[in-house]
Amino acid sequence: MLKEERLAKVYDQLSELGVSQMLVSDPVAIFYLTGKWLHPGERFLGLYLNAARQPQLFLNDLFRFEEEIGVNKVSITDTTDLTALLKQYVDPAKLLGVDKELAAKFLIPMYDAKLSDGIRNTSLAIDNARALKDAQEIEWMKESSRINDRAMAQFRALIREGITEKEAASQFLGIYQSLGASAYSFSPIVAFGANSADPHHMPDDTVIKEGDTVLIDVGCVYHDYCSDMTRTFFFKKEPSAEARRVYELVRNANESAEEMCRPGITLASIDKKARDIITEGGYGPDFTHRLGHFIGIQDHDFGDVSQANQNLTRTGNIFSIEPGIYNAAAAGVRIEDLVLITEDGHEVLNKYPKELQIIE
Amino acid sequence: MLKEERLAKVYDQLSELGVSQMLVSDPVAIFYLTGKWLHPGERFLGLYLNAARQPQLFLNDLFRFEEEIGVNKVSITDTTDLTALLKQYVDPAKLLGVDKELAAKFLIPMYDAKLSDGIRNTSLAIDNARALKDAQEIEWMKESSRINDRAMAQFRALIREGITEKEAASQFLGIYQSLGASAYSFSPIVAFGANSADPHHMPDDTVIKEGDTVLIDVGCVYHDYCSDMTRTFFFKKEPSAEARRVYELVRNANESAEEMCRPGITLASIDKKARDIITEGGYGPDFTHRLGHFIGIQDHDFGDVSQANQNLTRTGNIFSIEPGIYNAAAAGVRIEDLVLITEDGHEVLNKYPKELQIIE
Repeated sequence: MLKEERLAKVYDQLSELGVSQMLVSDPVAIFYLTGKWLHPGERFLGLYLNAARQPQLFLNDLFRFEEEIGVNKVSITDTTDLTALLKQYVDPAKLLGVDKELAAKFLIPMYDAKLSDGIRNTSLAIDNARALKDAQEIEWMKESSRINDRAMAQFRALIREGITEKEAASQFLGIYQSLGASAYSFSPIVAFGANSADPHHMPDDTVIKEGDTVLIDVGCVYHDYCSDMTRTFFFKKEPSAEARRVYELVRNANESAEEMCRPGITLASIDKKARDIITEGGYGPDFTHRLGHFIGIQDHDFGDVSQANQNLTRTGNIFSIEPGIYNAAAAGVRIEDLVLITEDGHEVLNKYPKELQIIE
Repeated sequence: MLKEERLAKVYDQLSELGVSQMLVSDPVAIFYLTGKWLHPGERFLGLYLNAARQPQLFLNDLFRFEEEIGVNKVSITDTTDLTALLKQYVDPAKLLGVDKELAAKFLIPMYDAKLSDGIRNTSLAIDNARALKDAQEIEWMKESSRINDRAMAQFRALIREGITEKEAASQFLGIYQSLGASAYSFSPIVAFGANSADPHHMPDDTVIKEGDTVLIDVGCVYHDYCSDMTRTFFFKKEPSAEARRVYELVRNANESAEEMCRPGITLASIDKKARDIITEGGYGPDFTHRLGHFIGIQDHDFGDVSQANQNLTRTGNIFSIEPGIYNAAAAGVRIEDLVLITEDGHEVLNKYPKELQIIE
């Protein structure tokens, strides 16, 4: 059913952008606004919004549904002239906002037909609304992270002599499902030893060996909302002095960045806090990515915690804090939690311990 | 390494379309032309082609690679003004072709900056080339379907008293991997009983029961190439006379459509052959989708076998033939193979039997 409060936020944002009509095409955005998942594949799907506030849903008959969700449904088929149909709704004398991901095959004919007086990417109107989680969203994201905490304990217990990264990872989905999650929020990362110094490593046939780091970066979906957490363990052996130092630097960067989180500070300042700690520790060049990303219905919602982002944190934001040091000679370590910005500070959604652990 | 023969096909197609420059952005198309998988996520990736035939690869530094693949690499970063950079390469006095999936966030600034004298969707230049498989692609697709045949026998053996659709499906990936496939080509469909009369059904907690149909629609990836096959079985009990009739109609539609396949006939005529058989049998309204789709690096490559497609078959085409009857009162049955168009006819890539089987 149409989410009136969310839609009101979007109308406000659109009017701030000076745009009075928008064609929303991203299935995630449409789910966010209507509560209805529609997966059109290569076909067109669009929710048209304008000042009249009577949304029109353009939907291929292949995906027709009877349920009433508070929008008028406009039927399209594989032979519909989409642009001609849109002309019956879109005001040609006004700018038209569209989603950032709208595909060229739909967009080029809109330009060719002069459907509107200019076209602008107004995804921000929805992305900014999505960045402010409401009470129900926060509840589901907390539960998603609670499941992730419990799952991490079980994933750790799988790491035994002789296991490969792939063998470990192949058991994660079943564990998540047994804990009440519906799916992965992204394909899990398991990296042993030198592999953990590659931030993009995917599980392969590497066999665990004594002294390895064990990096596990995982998340699940609960009620359509994502979790995402990373922990790095050591296997069977006390880490070298340098590996321990790397671990403690990353942990300090993670915890210090989390501690400062509150409404009204720049996202860049949070990244800087973590980055300065790692740089002062001598590993600046080995922290090769931004500190974090926003998360919600998608594992990567719009928005990041990076040196370039001067936007301010707001109550209801949820993002990751995930510093890392990727140094094959010393160790590859990443520690990641999700953080919710609350009115008077923050709450770390992940409770799984961060003290250095040696798996025996 | 740059695939010169494929690229030559694309240049020919572009010149037929009257377009002398194209910006290819689809990672699948770029893999097809360069042999290199690049996954830019939300970031820009582009391969610029023009009459000079010296492709330029626009690639974010985050995905930089040292390997030489026969194209000049143009570095971009998260702060690059992409349109300004493209202006140094694109001829502003000529039309620019782009991919059908190029996202609005990249395309709108190109219009705003008047990057070229018009923008056109020229995906067909690549899609038409991709529809003509070369010897290496055919070899990999045959092996992908051979694995799929062997896997189907193992999937059938999983169907026992008490099992749910989800429990069966959860074991498929391991079986594929043990047979040498790298992944699913799509999320597998397992549908018991009335569920098989819903062509979009996804595996759920439905428990198998005596007399059920068992529809299994599955495919895997081998050397980046997809397979896709459907078989429908019956569980423990002789089907009703009507269910048997539905099964044999679908099988006849499948086999008759396959038999006629050869170069130079319309794709619509193949769809018509199958549809006429089902319609004459009295179940026309229950065959609710097109007969098939092209397949290759993607499970759904561009192109379909449908009533609307008047294009001619060509040697090297590979597509699915998948008639179905979805009638909850009688039975939901689909039978699908992949077919290769050869110089003198066709080859059915799937060899798994199609005679009605009762799982005991």
